[in-house]
Amino acid sequence: MPFDLQAYLANHREIINNALTRILDTTGQDNRLIEAMRYSLMANGKRLRPILCMAAAEAVGGPTGAVVPAACALEMIHTYSLIHDDLPAMDNDDLRRGKPTSHVKFNEATAILAGDALLTLAFQVLATAKKGEQGDELKRLAVIARIARAAGYLGMIEGQMQDMAYENQQLTQEELEKMHGLKTGVLIRASIASGAILAGGNDLQLDHLDEYARSIGLAFQITDDILNVEGDPTIMGKAVGTDHLRSKSTYPSLLGLAPSKEYARQCIQKAIKALQSFDQQAEPLRAIARYVLDRQR
Amino acid sequence: MPFDLQAYLANHREIINNALTRILDTTGQDNRLIEAMRYSLMANGKRLRPILCMAAAEAVGGPTGAVVPAACALEMIHTYSLIHDDLPAMDNDDLRRGKPTSHVKFNEATAILAGDALLTLAFQVLATAKKGEQGDELKRLAVIARIARAAGYLGMIEGQMQDMAYENQQLTQEELEKMHGLKTGVLIRASIASGAILAGGNDLQLDHLDEYARSIGLAFQITDDILNVEGDPTIMGKAVGTDHLRSKSTYPSLLGLAPSKEYARQCIQKAIKALQSFDQQAEPLRAIARYVLDRQR
Repeated sequence: MPFDLQAYLANHREIINNALTRILDTTGQDNRLIEAMRYSLMANGKRLRPILCMAAAEAVGGPTGAVVPAACALEMIHTYSLIHDDLPAMDNDDLRRGKPTSHVKFNEATAILAGDALLTLAFQVLATAKKGEQGDELKRLAVIARIARAAGYLGMIEGQMQDMAYENQQLTQEELEKMHGLKTGVLIRASIASGAILAGGNDLQLDHLDEYARSIGLAFQITDDILNVEGDPTIMGKAVGTDHLRSKSTYPSLLGLAPSKEYARQCIQKAIKALQSFDQQAEPLRAIARYVLDRQR
Repeated sequence: MPFDLQAYLANHREIINNALTRILDTTGQDNRLIEAMRYSLMANGKRLRPILCMAAAEAVGGPTGAVVPAACALEMIHTYSLIHDDLPAMDNDDLRRGKPTSHVKFNEATAILAGDALLTLAFQVLATAKKGEQGDELKRLAVIARIARAAGYLGMIEGQMQDMAYENQQLTQEELEKMHGLKTGVLIRASIASGAILAGGNDLQLDHLDEYARSIGLAFQITDDILNVEGDPTIMGKAVGTDHLRSKSTYPSLLGLAPSKEYARQCIQKAIKALQSFDQQAEPLRAIARYVLDRQR
């Protein structure tokens, strides 16, 4: 029986969405800040990072339930970065995941604080999981450090700095890949590493999974650029053609559309090859790699 | 020989400043983001939270060197909150610690990201301290969770939300104390708890120290309000009279200036009383309490 990726994604999205809902509901409180956090966090996200985290745990033979808190933390960090990147002082985007962005729906101050709060909550969740729920304490500390490094000033945040600095500049492919490697690549890699570490993966497995992660991260960005050219805004929930309007350097603008598609295809081949020593428990990761290539949003 | 607080503060500030400098220098990189992080972090701060963290470790008889990373993390979180609170969308302040605020010196996007980066780096530092440097792993996880809760959506960030929502409103004393308890109180309490937990304090000690922390946190806010009325801007490094201009509810506006001073004095008495079961190793905490009352900035 072929692996049913759509069922797998739907099932795992539900697990993540339920866990995220529970985390924000446990306080018994509700106010404007929590409303703003929930608004962005519970928007119709792909949940790519948490699903990769869980799939990596499966690939090394571990239980996935134990990595759910870490998976939720990764989605919180991803969501905070979107809220802040969308701010008027940064990319000034009005639409995200098919809805008005946080600063449009609420206001700028609330959007900044909701982002801060999601980032902070991510680390609270990583640190407070019940004993045994995320593996032993040393592993949990290693994962917190790994995620913080990826999301931090040498990773994702520096990627956003570069992305803004490069606006209206024609980049080389090397500069573009370095920027994306920081802006989106490192957190995708940390998502996969976190799941594998918490589920007890060994160093060799971690190396292979990181090779996989690098390749799908790059493919993800290439397809993102392609979708910005020829995607369907009603499926994507955000505007297309914006990269061109902003004179952003993209893979299609650097390489052309068809060579970009070919490049993405090669990345996915490389990702799948990195998993060759894994058994069928890595089938979800393989299927996700193919999905990254064919996705419509 | 009476305890020399000025020497103690100078000595501990130097330890913290050296440690903070080292943390930001270890990367070997330098760029605009790191420059912005350093600009705010290495401004002429009082280092109250890290010093309280170290003094609490001393009070329970532990070594202070082991809590330096946590102390640095607390200062990073405090600094990030100042950068974001100063933003145009929030309090729109131009001057902080005697220098132009981050968004004035750099730009708004850089200020937002430098704040994000300092918050993230705080958790990286908390999670990556060398084994044994911060006590055992369970304690370190407990401290990460405690600090994240204090800094998060049920703590400091909600305090900032309330502070903004309350602008131009006349508050009751209860509302004012609740808001300040969140905005500044919980992180001061977490600073003291972190030092004591990492240094091996027992539950009874932690309870007494938290009573101390609540009282000095409140006194600190009352004196902050008083300094905004009658402080010397050249000593404080920021404008005074701003609360009145913004029609902010403050202790002087609610209670009058002299009763506010008396209230702060009572809080400090209560703080010192909470330490009565501690020996002379708690002398720095006692001296800091008196300093909070008499400070000029």
